[in-house]
Amino acid sequence: MQQFDAISPIDYRYYPNNEKIFQQLQPYLSENALIEYMAMTEVALIAGFADEGICSKEIFEEIKHTAPLITAEQVYAEEKRIHHLVRALVNCFGEYVSPEAKRFIHLSATSHDIICTAEALRYQDITQKVLLPKLLELEKTLLYVAEKEKATLQIGRTHGQHAVPITFGFAIAEYVARVGERIHEITAKALQLRGQLSGAVGAYNASSLIVKDPVAFEKNVLAKLNLKPATHSTQIVVPEFMTDYVHSIISCFGVLANLADDMRHLQRTEIGEVGELFEEKQVGSSTMPHKKNPIHFEHVKSLYKATMPRMMTLYLDQISEHQRDLTNSASSRFTTEIVANFYLAIDRLTRTMKKLAVDKEAMQRNFAMSKESIVAEPLYVLLSLHGCQDAHEKIRVAAEIARLEKKSLLQKVREMPELLEVVVKFTPEQKQILENPEQYLGKAVEKTEETCNYWRKELGL
Amino acid sequence: MQQFDAISPIDYRYYPNNEKIFQQLQPYLSENALIEYMAMTEVALIAGFADEGICSKEIFEEIKHTAPLITAEQVYAEEKRIHHLVRALVNCFGEYVSPEAKRFIHLSATSHDIICTAEALRYQDITQKVLLPKLLELEKTLLYVAEKEKATLQIGRTHGQHAVPITFGFAIAEYVARVGERIHEITAKALQLRGQLSGAVGAYNASSLIVKDPVAFEKNVLAKLNLKPATHSTQIVVPEFMTDYVHSIISCFGVLANLADDMRHLQRTEIGEVGELFEEKQVGSSTMPHKKNPIHFEHVKSLYKATMPRMMTLYLDQISEHQRDLTNSASSRFTTEIVANFYLAIDRLTRTMKKLAVDKEAMQRNFAMSKESIVAEPLYVLLSLHGCQDAHEKIRVAAEIARLEKKSLLQKVREMPELLEVVVKFTPEQKQILENPEQYLGKAVEKTEETCNYWRKELGL
Amino acid sequence: MQQFDAISPIDYRYYPNNEKIFQQLQPYLSENALIEYMAMTEVALIAGFADEGICSKEIFEEIKHTAPLITAEQVYAEEKRIHHLVRALVNCFGEYVSPEAKRFIHLSATSHDIICTAEALRYQDITQKVLLPKLLELEKTLLYVAEKEKATLQIGRTHGQHAVPITFGFAIAEYVARVGERIHEITAKALQLRGQLSGAVGAYNASSLIVKDPVAFEKNVLAKLNLKPATHSTQIVVPEFMTDYVHSIISCFGVLANLADDMRHLQRTEIGEVGELFEEKQVGSSTMPHKKNPIHFEHVKSLYKATMPRMMTLYLDQISEHQRDLTNSASSRFTTEIVANFYLAIDRLTRTMKKLAVDKEAMQRNFAMSKESIVAEPLYVLLSLHGCQDAHEKIRVAAEIARLEKKSLLQKVREMPELLEVVVKFTPEQKQILENPEQYLGKAVEKTEETCNYWRKELGL
Amino acid sequence: MQQFDAISPIDYRYYPNNEKIFQQLQPYLSENALIEYMAMTEVALIAGFADEGICSKEIFEEIKHTAPLITAEQVYAEEKRIHHLVRALVNCFGEYVSPEAKRFIHLSATSHDIICTAEALRYQDITQKVLLPKLLELEKTLLYVAEKEKATLQIGRTHGQHAVPITFGFAIAEYVARVGERIHEITAKALQLRGQLSGAVGAYNASSLIVKDPVAFEKNVLAKLNLKPATHSTQIVVPEFMTDYVHSIISCFGVLANLADDMRHLQRTEIGEVGELFEEKQVGSSTMPHKKNPIHFEHVKSLYKATMPRMMTLYLDQISEHQRDLTNSASSRFTTEIVANFYLAIDRLTRTMKKLAVDKEAMQRNFAMSKESIVAEPLYVLLSLHGCQDAHEKIRVAAEIARLEKKSLLQKVREMPELLEVVVKFTPEQKQILENPEQYLGKAVEKTEETCNYWRKELGL
Repeated sequence: MQQFDAISPIDYRYYPNNEKIFQQLQPYLSENALIEYMAMTEVALIAGFADEGICSKEIFEEIKHTAPLITAEQVYAEEKRIHHLVRALVNCFGEYVSPEAKRFIHLSATSHDIICTAEALRYQDITQKVLLPKLLELEKTLLYVAEKEKATLQIGRTHGQHAVPITFGFAIAEYVARVGERIHEITAKALQLRGQLSGAVGAYNASSLIVKDPVAFEKNVLAKLNLKPATHSTQIVVPEFMTDYVHSIISCFGVLANLADDMRHLQRTEIGEVGELFEEKQVGSSTMPHKKNPIHFEHVKSLYKATMPRMMTLYLDQISEHQRDLTNSASSRFTTEIVANFYLAIDRLTRTMKKLAVDKEAMQRNFAMSKESIVAEPLYVLLSLHGCQDAHEKIRVAAEIARLEKKSLLQKVREMPELLEVVVKFTPEQKQILENPEQYLGKAVEKTEETCNYWRKELGL
Repeated sequence: MQQFDAISPIDYRYYPNNEKIFQQLQPYLSENALIEYMAMTEVALIAGFADEGICSKEIFEEIKHTAPLITAEQVYAEEKRIHHLVRALVNCFGEYVSPEAKRFIHLSATSHDIICTAEALRYQDITQKVLLPKLLELEKTLLYVAEKEKATLQIGRTHGQHAVPITFGFAIAEYVARVGERIHEITAKALQLRGQLSGAVGAYNASSLIVKDPVAFEKNVLAKLNLKPATHSTQIVVPEFMTDYVHSIISCFGVLANLADDMRHLQRTEIGEVGELFEEKQVGSSTMPHKKNPIHFEHVKSLYKATMPRMMTLYLDQISEHQRDLTNSASSRFTTEIVANFYLAIDRLTRTMKKLAVDKEAMQRNFAMSKESIVAEPLYVLLSLHGCQDAHEKIRVAAEIARLEKKSLLQKVREMPELLEVVVKFTPEQKQILENPEQYLGKAVEKTEETCNYWRKELGL
Repeated sequence: MQQFDAISPIDYRYYPNNEKIFQQLQPYLSENALIEYMAMTEVALIAGFADEGICSKEIFEEIKHTAPLITAEQVYAEEKRIHHLVRALVNCFGEYVSPEAKRFIHLSATSHDIICTAEALRYQDITQKVLLPKLLELEKTLLYVAEKEKATLQIGRTHGQHAVPITFGFAIAEYVARVGERIHEITAKALQLRGQLSGAVGAYNASSLIVKDPVAFEKNVLAKLNLKPATHSTQIVVPEFMTDYVHSIISCFGVLANLADDMRHLQRTEIGEVGELFEEKQVGSSTMPHKKNPIHFEHVKSLYKATMPRMMTLYLDQISEHQRDLTNSASSRFTTEIVANFYLAIDRLTRTMKKLAVDKEAMQRNFAMSKESIVAEPLYVLLSLHGCQDAHEKIRVAAEIARLEKKSLLQKVREMPELLEVVVKFTPEQKQILENPEQYLGKAVEKTEETCNYWRKELGL
Repeated sequence: MQQFDAISPIDYRYYPNNEKIFQQLQPYLSENALIEYMAMTEVALIAGFADEGICSKEIFEEIKHTAPLITAEQVYAEEKRIHHLVRALVNCFGEYVSPEAKRFIHLSATSHDIICTAEALRYQDITQKVLLPKLLELEKTLLYVAEKEKATLQIGRTHGQHAVPITFGFAIAEYVARVGERIHEITAKALQLRGQLSGAVGAYNASSLIVKDPVAFEKNVLAKLNLKPATHSTQIVVPEFMTDYVHSIISCFGVLANLADDMRHLQRTEIGEVGELFEEKQVGSSTMPHKKNPIHFEHVKSLYKATMPRMMTLYLDQISEHQRDLTNSASSRFTTEIVANFYLAIDRLTRTMKKLAVDKEAMQRNFAMSKESIVAEPLYVLLSLHGCQDAHEKIRVAAEIARLEKKSLLQKVREMPELLEVVVKFTPEQKQILENPEQYLGKAVEKTEETCNYWRKELGL
């Protein structure tokens, strides 16, 4: 099969065309990788046998050195003959080792002792070695933007409408916090992934024939792979560990999608507060030569839409009849795509945020549009504070009238004796805010610093 | 990229390892295929220009002969440089044709005129040429089994409990009807797929500069590809045509999954009414050498679980801001996987149903378990019919007592004077059914025939 | 239970607080309604018996007049005792009718003959009597806006960026077409809903004891309710008819959500092209007295997010083991919520679109922002048409330079001799468009008319 | 609105018909409950003001005593007038308190300070007070069954096929572990729910006008409700805390569904290993008076199918534009239904598991069906262990031949000299297992004890 014969966009488009991405994902998510991890698990089992004196150290060494020789291609050729992937792997081992060694391979294990353990291993590895470093890179980028723009005035927006002011750094600090918190969750749930070596139905039937304490034996074998067993298993590791792990990814994907949406909208022609820097020869539209589209942010959102619903597959795979049915076999293979798309989204988002252009003038200009009406909130609060009854309602009505009369709200309020008599009681600082609504920033700057400092410390950045 | 470096199980496992499957799917679902369909669409546009006298016939011929030369590999190499796939395709054309011809390529079209049209084309083609023939093969297989087993006694099951008798053919006729009905739906919805040639925002802005009646021009160009436009479009074809098409597939997938589940359960050790014939060297379990598992039916269910949730991506992609945002770009590329998994499931299910072993003895044996209690329903109905009050409640209680006294229900009823006096009024045929509950088959046989005849005729089988 | 003890927001908030909405939905979606439809179905069965002479006309009349007396409250009280809803309904009939009549009630039917048929009926009824009229009202509103604003200049937007011009009517015509097309689909799929009277396992076992031709009998009974049977059934109607029906609703919900999103974004403070008219005493924000938020459009989107994923429940309910398992029982009850939410969304959207304020000045102002760069597309097309090579690339570069030199694109192009020599060949009309990009409207106006005319005719509006 | 006018099955059927369930859910999930929690939150804000000396203790006392007077009915009547729920609540307070007190109510808060905080509170409360006790009751029931049946021989099943033996207690211990582990997760995620008091855009703009340190002020107010703020917020609490909480529920629901499926299948007529005890007057089928269906287990699965897909709504609600859009408002109200369905499922499952009938004879009988072939696994393992090459393949072939020759596998093996010479080397204990496959139990009994002990300790049961 050639690259462009592939059916999955991951395989013909998103993954192999970028060498860096390929090198990050191939060692964990490809089928070559899975076969390697499975072979590694078979070797750990033999190491356990050697520890117990079931087989000799020599046999262990022999098998261990054989593992790297086995390729996915070879295993699949054998599978074509016997229609069983794990047994095919075992047979491939058998082609290299002595008959004496051969009989120990896979002994007492069921296929999913090997597959579940290999899966736990590879997802732990890619999380530790690829996803978390990449997320930390995104987090650092967000921290950089948040801190750099902590005092950059921006109008806060709710319902897509101007509300009251914040700073752009404060807006980004939201994502510092959310991504930071998801990093914690992903880390924790990857560490929770479990292996097993409990046999065909989970009751150690076969291993009980070989070792005295098969539960301790399982612990020992898994420890060689830095894994632990769950408190109970069937033919498979109980699914919730994987369900939680993928949820941690999907829920982080939602945060990325939200950030991408925010940036897309800030990039709207009429808003224009941020931009994606374009490469020199990049074409924006096949027919409109002038266009500069937020394609990277759109891409992140699109990957999210392709990926998020697949969480349901994980939920459906929680249900496996009795000691297991096989209906999770094909479906769980697609988990690699979820992780790949997640990586692609982080990578794209990070690269785009790194070259994000912030247009402070546009932010000032947009802010100015609502300068007048922003005053409504502090006015109502201060009026209430200084003893005015029903201030909220009075200001709502005053704002309405001001709009009709094309006056500023403050001007209108000064014309209403009932309100004016309260306004005069305001302190100079309070009056200052009303005159200069850009100062009505609350703790936007300080909170940005606090949030950034908190997450720098939490994540050691 | 090598096969086993792929991340999608479709690309390393389910698709390229079987030459027949590869040859069925590659011409429609691979990226090579998409590029071909896009080139074909660009050519149709030029044919339209030639019809209008915008360009010469010679230029059309030149471009037409160029199209087959263009490869995905070449287009992707150019895309790497300019970051725009459709413009890359246009540039690739440009490398082969004369400058005079070059300027007409893609003229007035927007990228998604080409992409949406090419997508509609390839999904129509694979439906007509691959999916429907495959579904008809499954339907024929189901018809064969239903007709062959139309009189094979089987206990009907509701709630997993024995209910009243049917025949195995009747049970399969359910799927004849459901698959038949889905074939109609898939056919209809594939034919509904629409192309377009309405430019950057759907208002024919650019094509209005070139041709007098761009709406008629669009119709003419699409007609060359056997496609029609929708009544309105934006930068993209309105999404509902594709949403409906994928729904028709997903809902058919649900029927396949249900059939697979039914067969899996009939194959349970305790039930054993059907079996999958195994190939000679096939291994059932890596540790239990005696096992024969319903892996093909499990596989179909598993593909379903991997695929069904993705319908949500189609629903999410219905939403595209204003004249379009690009957040459907990556996500819609994954539709190929949905179609591929669907094909794989039909193929696997058909092959397995073809060699389905039906164990009539087991069906008889299982039926016999409930022979006694089946009588309850006809008894209650006949009692009511012959004038007995509250027959349902009386039989419910009698069945309870019979169970406790370990008598047959009929025996018990005969001991109850109040019921006995009604039972004696039953006709000989009615008594016959009570004595021989295997005759309480209703219209199972006739209905099986009727259903099969109906669908044979509807589908021309 | 009191209203505010309800747990579903439909029951405490969205439905009973508005008398009109209540009166529209209660007769179809409440449990009172379901019980009524079920009683109606039981009566149809008796009518069938009377036709066949199984029971007398008098008995039919007696039972028919009893049906309206039965209340959900009464049925539920009886269900509490016997734990079976349909049998409880039968018992309630029994309390009113003579013993002679009583024994015919429900005779030969299984619970789901009654429930499936009643469900088909009520969803057909609410579709015909409530949903479609409501959708047609929305369609009329959209037609009104589209036609009224067919010539109102608006900048077309793709990727949230200014593209080339359209009219606001053209933008709305998109929704005329999409809603129109969904009206067709919903109509068709509601008509496809099927009833049944085929007994415990679908094989007419019980009814075969009573009537000669139970298949014809089923047809006759269903015809009394204006329903048809499917070509095959089990204990339940095959699920695909309901799956398709709900899909038609969900996919229409996606169109509503898209329209709502478009309007929300056009209402952004910086864009301000449309607005929702506020009621006089309405409060926009609990703390910001000046705010006017697009809450109705947001509400539609929110209902969509609450509802769309539930399509997965319908897909899951396609799978029912053998002649049926009961795992679709509770889940299918929630379909009422899907229909209710859909109604609520149409109603809210229609009311909001009816009082939509369109700010033509804002549309002009926004258009003016991009007036200069819009020229790029017609320029490239006309240059190509007049023989210029690589016009797209040349204009892309020129646009880039113009931006840097703060010149207009047209100005820049005139400074480039190579382009200027082609530009001079343009016709006066072509030049006119370049000078007045607001005329670069393509067929926006005509297409709006065409689309509106088409759907007016199709839907008889 | 009357009960049977409700549209949600929760409101007309599952919730109000059982007084116990009503009393458990109403105080947290009804709208009456939400309004109460919101009033409680407004009171906490005033308590904060009193602490800071912004208002007097008397005002705090006055407002505090007013809160319980406010009803949902009253708030909704006011909302009808002003179209804003939180402002309506504030106005209702205002009707009871002095003008002096009134002006402090809600001062500086935004609606979602109150709503988000109230939601966090009520979901924490129902988790602590209702869900976790109920889950612990289920866990105790499972522990009881597991320990009671720890030595009850059952055939292990994979792929629905007999595999090797376990005990029924061991099978249940799987659910002890999985439910136990989910109890941990739900506990943790409920505790993670967060409140807020950060104003209209999260930057403490308004509260900065009133108190010196609004961040500390927020902490103090939330502490009064036993809540904490997140590290950052916008107009709303960042969504991931709620996403995680609902995921913990949905993933636990999957465990319940799996248990229900297992029990349903063990209850199949042919298997008959477990049963649901029926109430005396309970009707199993409206037409088949003899039927006893696993309706409670089916109900749990059905609630799961109705609920699980709604997780997607939570994921979609993670995306909120800028400092917030309102598209999560209606959708998040439906979270109450998720929690209600979850409670209903635990309750039903617990009650059913409590009266689960275990048929040990049926388990023995089913085991006996596969007694012969079970030997295959230990035979292959022991042969390998004692030096035999390719034992797995040899036994697979021998099992095939034995099946054809209708011999026992052991018998066949003894006829094969090559294998016999190894078999004679087996120890007496090993031979014992081959002769008595019911002893091939591995560590099923010990592991059941270990798992039960572990979770008893972990959960303090």
